[in-house]
Amino acid sequence: MASPVNPPRGMRDFLPAEKAWRERVLAEIRRSYRAHGFDEIETPVMEDSERLHAGLGGDNEKLAFAIMKRGLTIDDLRSADEALDLADLGLRFDLTVPLARFYATHHADLPAVFRAIQIAPVWRAERPQKGRYRQFVQCDIDIIGEAGAAAEIELLCASVATLRALGLTRFTIRINDRRILTSALAALGVEADAIPDALIILDKLDKLGRIGVVTELGEKGFGEVAPRIDDLLRMQLTDRDGIESATVSVPISTASIEAVLPPGTDPDAIASVVAIGEAVAAVAGAGVVEFDPWLVRGMGYYTGTIFEVAHPEVGYSLGGGGRYDGMIGRFLGAETPAAGFSLGFERIVDLAVLPEDDLAGAVALIHDGVDPAHLARLQAELVASGQRVRVERKPRNVSALFDQLLASGFTRVATVTADSTVESLAFRELGGADPKAPSSGPLGS
Amino acid sequence: MASPVNPPRGMRDFLPAEKAWRERVLAEIRRSYRAHGFDEIETPVMEDSERLHAGLGGDNEKLAFAIMKRGLTIDDLRSADEALDLADLGLRFDLTVPLARFYATHHADLPAVFRAIQIAPVWRAERPQKGRYRQFVQCDIDIIGEAGAAAEIELLCASVATLRALGLTRFTIRINDRRILTSALAALGVEADAIPDALIILDKLDKLGRIGVVTELGEKGFGEVAPRIDDLLRMQLTDRDGIESATVSVPISTASIEAVLPPGTDPDAIASVVAIGEAVAAVAGAGVVEFDPWLVRGMGYYTGTIFEVAHPEVGYSLGGGGRYDGMIGRFLGAETPAAGFSLGFERIVDLAVLPEDDLAGAVALIHDGVDPAHLARLQAELVASGQRVRVERKPRNVSALFDQLLASGFTRVATVTADSTVESLAFRELGGADPKAPSSGPLGS
Repeated sequence: MASPVNPPRGMRDFLPAEKAWRERVLAEIRRSYRAHGFDEIETPVMEDSERLHAGLGGDNEKLAFAIMKRGLTIDDLRSADEALDLADLGLRFDLTVPLARFYATHHADLPAVFRAIQIAPVWRAERPQKGRYRQFVQCDIDIIGEAGAAAEIELLCASVATLRALGLTRFTIRINDRRILTSALAALGVEADAIPDALIILDKLDKLGRIGVVTELGEKGFGEVAPRIDDLLRMQLTDRDGIESATVSVPISTASIEAVLPPGTDPDAIASVVAIGEAVAAVAGAGVVEFDPWLVRGMGYYTGTIFEVAHPEVGYSLGGGGRYDGMIGRFLGAETPAAGFSLGFERIVDLAVLPEDDLAGAVALIHDGVDPAHLARLQAELVASGQRVRVERKPRNVSALFDQLLASGFTRVATVTADSTVESLAFRELGGADPKAPSSGPLGS
Repeated sequence: MASPVNPPRGMRDFLPAEKAWRERVLAEIRRSYRAHGFDEIETPVMEDSERLHAGLGGDNEKLAFAIMKRGLTIDDLRSADEALDLADLGLRFDLTVPLARFYATHHADLPAVFRAIQIAPVWRAERPQKGRYRQFVQCDIDIIGEAGAAAEIELLCASVATLRALGLTRFTIRINDRRILTSALAALGVEADAIPDALIILDKLDKLGRIGVVTELGEKGFGEVAPRIDDLLRMQLTDRDGIESATVSVPISTASIEAVLPPGTDPDAIASVVAIGEAVAAVAGAGVVEFDPWLVRGMGYYTGTIFEVAHPEVGYSLGGGGRYDGMIGRFLGAETPAAGFSLGFERIVDLAVLPEDDLAGAVALIHDGVDPAHLARLQAELVASGQRVRVERKPRNVSALFDQLLASGFTRVATVTADSTVESLAFRELGGADPKAPSSGPLGS
């Protein structure tokens, strides 16, 4: 029993300060998305195995934690053909498969255009790495039932406002459209059925750079079109300032986007990106949205617009999403337009900056053996006046207690005696220039 | 794909109105407990199997959903002796086992007296019944490291204040002490090692009544002491008004409690119950706490005070808890005093009454094909002024849309045209005496 005791591998406990911060950031996300007209829903953490393994989750399906059937006998173990035969449920690996299942169950009770918020943990049984956990929170918004660009505009405006409400200002939204990618590659001579493979390679542009991507294209059967893609990349990557960067950023306008794409690229898709980008710029300011002709996003289910949040201080995306018209209706058996945006909560929570907590400046009542009923009355009176209050018995090491109180946000202390009243309490600040200062006062040991 | 699609058996989806209500009640519980000096923590939903099956969870251990090891081979299935050999993790069935594990992991970083809030789902693989679910939320507070009655007083004062903040007023807290139960039964002649069995029978007093309990005592080997217990029950049950009720309620005072217990009952335990009851009464008002000499509570790990919340409108407890000094230190290998209180969230959420939502009176902007950028600008302006705003395209059936908006809390609508400004929007109330009224106005179809 005395050996080290830890949470399960790759999963985290949250101690008071971190938990309070996470809850504050989540509450602000919830408030902001609700203000933009979205409604929060919740589904159970698990789904029936057949739903999780219906092909909607891509590679993530393999990462679902499987939950064993109840009452399995030795015979069941002996006669199973594979481990999954013994599991009837699994933990969700994303919030999109559960949303598709939820929509199939409840569509009759939902508005024609349904704006969903889901803020909830997901689980992936993958090898834990730095910054990658096996349980983490996702914050998704989705608009189901709106086929037009109004959905993308709402998703992006609400998400930009939410990121700004969290104190983030220096991000940009990179936008593209799957139809631009496929039509541009077709115009360059890539065969239709080879386009997904080409996209997998081009998706690595920010990691491999131009030469790396073109080399890999040549190696993987795209030798004929690789020089044409190379020419296009040279033109795009030096378009603005003559310096070759690893990603392409193009201002939102028909002219500037057409200028970096091959003739024959789908004009409707370009018009859609421009309309979305201009609408978001009109609300959120010019420059927030940029066109990235090689933004791919991995998930195979996207069918139109795709977008991603980039931040100069971090090398990874803070969120993203897109249109995935074929997917939400799969369990329902009806084609349903849908678009969604997912915030990378575990990344954002470290960057967020919020104004002072309502309960900041909480107070501690320190006593040396006062009647608990008296203490409880004083606490109740202070709580009723809107304060956060903790009662602590004076320990031998007052200074350590004060450090802990400060770390928990209790910034003021008062000594309580048997005849103290709320009015007679003399509060003194903890911390400040000399955090140990109060311990040398009358409260000190 | 067109067959009915449902969440896993015994688990629930929450649609927008219910989810919003649950989140408001949870936020109020969190706010109130935090105001009383408690700190929220979070643990992963799963724990290592050996922790869940260490004997701390009583009968609930059998109800843990088991999560399969990764990469199981056919050989693993063939060579396993039982199903649990294939599971290395399980979903928590309560919040107390994870708290004990959390405390063992982090005690060095926690205050000497640690006040924890845990608000989180738990899972039990039992047969679903009306009102019993396989995933449900528990709200626990615990005080670890305080051996004195100050812990129970804080738990009860904070919980009474929290229940009242949720609009509940007619509840009572029934209180007892395991040491009263054991010493009273010993004084009546029950052998020490037979006391747990006698308690299991006496715990059914509210269901079986006096005659049922005495009969079962006689049948199960307590024939000798059953008449003495019967005499005591007759005296207790008619103590106050001559009518025999199924539960005993005794006002908090040494005299009134001693009057209903056999001579020889532990006087220290009586004094402790009186001190706790009087302190809570001093804060929360007389009559909130009552002594119940036959309150047992099932969990075997309680060692001292036990309590339960009764409400006249419902036949079940709204929460409860007690002192369980031996348990939190089990994984740590050190004796640690602890007491806790668990609110039955799934019961309370239906009874709670809260003041109007901040975002109540949300507004909907109805249009008939206005430029999305213009709509997004209007929405952003209204959101920035503190309103909740949804944009809806006018459908053929406006009346159905208005019904849905009202159900989602959108009580005012305005029609938007291409030249609308925030100042020019004319809002009209939805609902009221005639919820369909607006649809006969200029917005109607």
